[in-house]
Amino acid sequence: VFDGPPRRATAQGAARAAAAMVRQSLARSRPGPVGGRIALVGAGPGTADLLTLRALRHLQEADVIFYDRLVDPAVLDFARRDAERVFVGKEVGASAWPQPRIDAVIVAAARRGKRVVRLKSGDPSIFGRAAEELAAARAAGIPVEIVPGITAASAAAAALGRPLTERGETGALVLATATRRPGEPAPDLAAQLRPGTTLAIYMGAQAAEATARRLVAADLPGTLEVEIVVAASIAAQSVRRTTLAALAEGRAGPVASPALILVRYPSAAAGRSMDTAEPACRAAVCAV
Amino acid sequence: VFDGPPRRATAQGAARAAAAMVRQSLARSRPGPVGGRIALVGAGPGTADLLTLRALRHLQEADVIFYDRLVDPAVLDFARRDAERVFVGKEVGASAWPQPRIDAVIVAAARRGKRVVRLKSGDPSIFGRAAEELAAARAAGIPVEIVPGITAASAAAAALGRPLTERGETGALVLATATRRPGEPAPDLAAQLRPGTTLAIYMGAQAAEATARRLVAADLPGTLEVEIVVAASIAAQSVRRTTLAALAEGRAGPVASPALILVRYPSAAAGRSMDTAEPACRAAVCAV
Repeated sequence: VFDGPPRRATAQGAARAAAAMVRQSLARSRPGPVGGRIALVGAGPGTADLLTLRALRHLQEADVIFYDRLVDPAVLDFARRDAERVFVGKEVGASAWPQPRIDAVIVAAARRGKRVVRLKSGDPSIFGRAAEELAAARAAGIPVEIVPGITAASAAAAALGRPLTERGETGALVLATATRRPGEPAPDLAAQLRPGTTLAIYMGAQAAEATARRLVAADLPGTLEVEIVVAASIAAQSVRRTTLAALAEGRAGPVASPALILVRYPSAAAGRSMDTAEPACRAAVCAV
Repeated sequence: VFDGPPRRATAQGAARAAAAMVRQSLARSRPGPVGGRIALVGAGPGTADLLTLRALRHLQEADVIFYDRLVDPAVLDFARRDAERVFVGKEVGASAWPQPRIDAVIVAAARRGKRVVRLKSGDPSIFGRAAEELAAARAAGIPVEIVPGITAASAAAAALGRPLTERGETGALVLATATRRPGEPAPDLAAQLRPGTTLAIYMGAQAAEATARRLVAADLPGTLEVEIVVAASIAAQSVRRTTLAALAEGRAGPVASPALILVRYPSAAAGRSMDTAEPACRAAVCAV
């Protein structure tokens, strides 16, 4: 059976060693035994009932599941009793597994013929580091697929009972992160948050206040509506409404993690109304 | 039983009449009988196995289901045999039901004590006209909720086997529509498509070429990679890769509907690589 790598301490340079291990193992590029394959599965925002049926099937077929910090235990309960569960996320106060190490262990398991599920919170395609894992699997000749999940912004909208786009007010939805990693260009949130736009900030808890300050400094109106959704979909879920100015000035209170922060900048031509006349119907089927 | 409104032809002004009907019925604001409620349920991109477990439960509990054009028959098969199914979408060559009429019929059904599912393709919160239906339900005192669905962009990423954000290349994802409705401000796609951004254009089939021309006219590089995903997740699914210039010049061929169009503008500081060293690990748990 696949036991996962041992969790013992080493000196610095572990990340580099892991990267080298991936390079070496990928260089061999033997195809895996029959049946070995990898699915990058979206676990959704947390609650188990927002899994898709396809994700459920993959969980039930998996021999080994590598899962993230934000995945709810109830999601893992859908796996077979004999499936191996390997935590590859971030412990409180500790760093995450380096990505190259995750790439290496999922490829190694698939090479041994395992049906591997790499279970990621939300949707693997949105801020999920899927590109690296896809590349590693393909370099090793292992079949790999993405199984979509409900992304945090959709879950936040459900928590709020309010959609992310509203006709006549917001015609574009921008998903971005508040933080950047070393070597990454900083996302220019102020440039993206234009009239007619809803900005959804992922992983926004820690940098919430600083992000709001940057937006206000970039001359965005302090009156913009801000919604903070913490732990969307799970028992700890909470929702708060404030303004950009209040958040920037620290008057909105601390923001717990995980949080999705929505900033809404309705179009200048706003005026959504139940009374707005629809374009005239030109066909029988739309008649009353 | 609730039979839905008759589908007979009338003169122009039907839309206005429907709007008036909603206003009148909402003005009464009686709470519905016990049990009457509305769920705006995301049907996902098409295929039934991308439904969430929560959506499945709502389908199985529903007394009446009002569904859209893009909802796959296999999704409706999850409903109870005795549940009523009412098509409120757009027929080929005909206009859609006016939104106020949909608002009116779902509220009317819930008032009669029905458990109503308003089944929308994708995620109700993203370009799903959910705001109007939520407002109508609330004005009538009827409990209403949003049940998230897999949005088209996520399904397109799964179809491509490629995520929507890629580390070091694209740190923001913009969801927008190519077309605007009467009275709507036109989305400024060129302003949203900045370096480091992936632009996902919903309902983009008909306006694909015109949209690409506008982006090129706004000085966006013609070399930008474009991916066209038609009918993501269902049997008719097809994927095409081209460039912004080729699409603008009509060299990418016709685009069938429904299509999601991705335009990727990687960051100038791009340089994603499997070799990129991770930040050094500072804790035992991330050691190799």
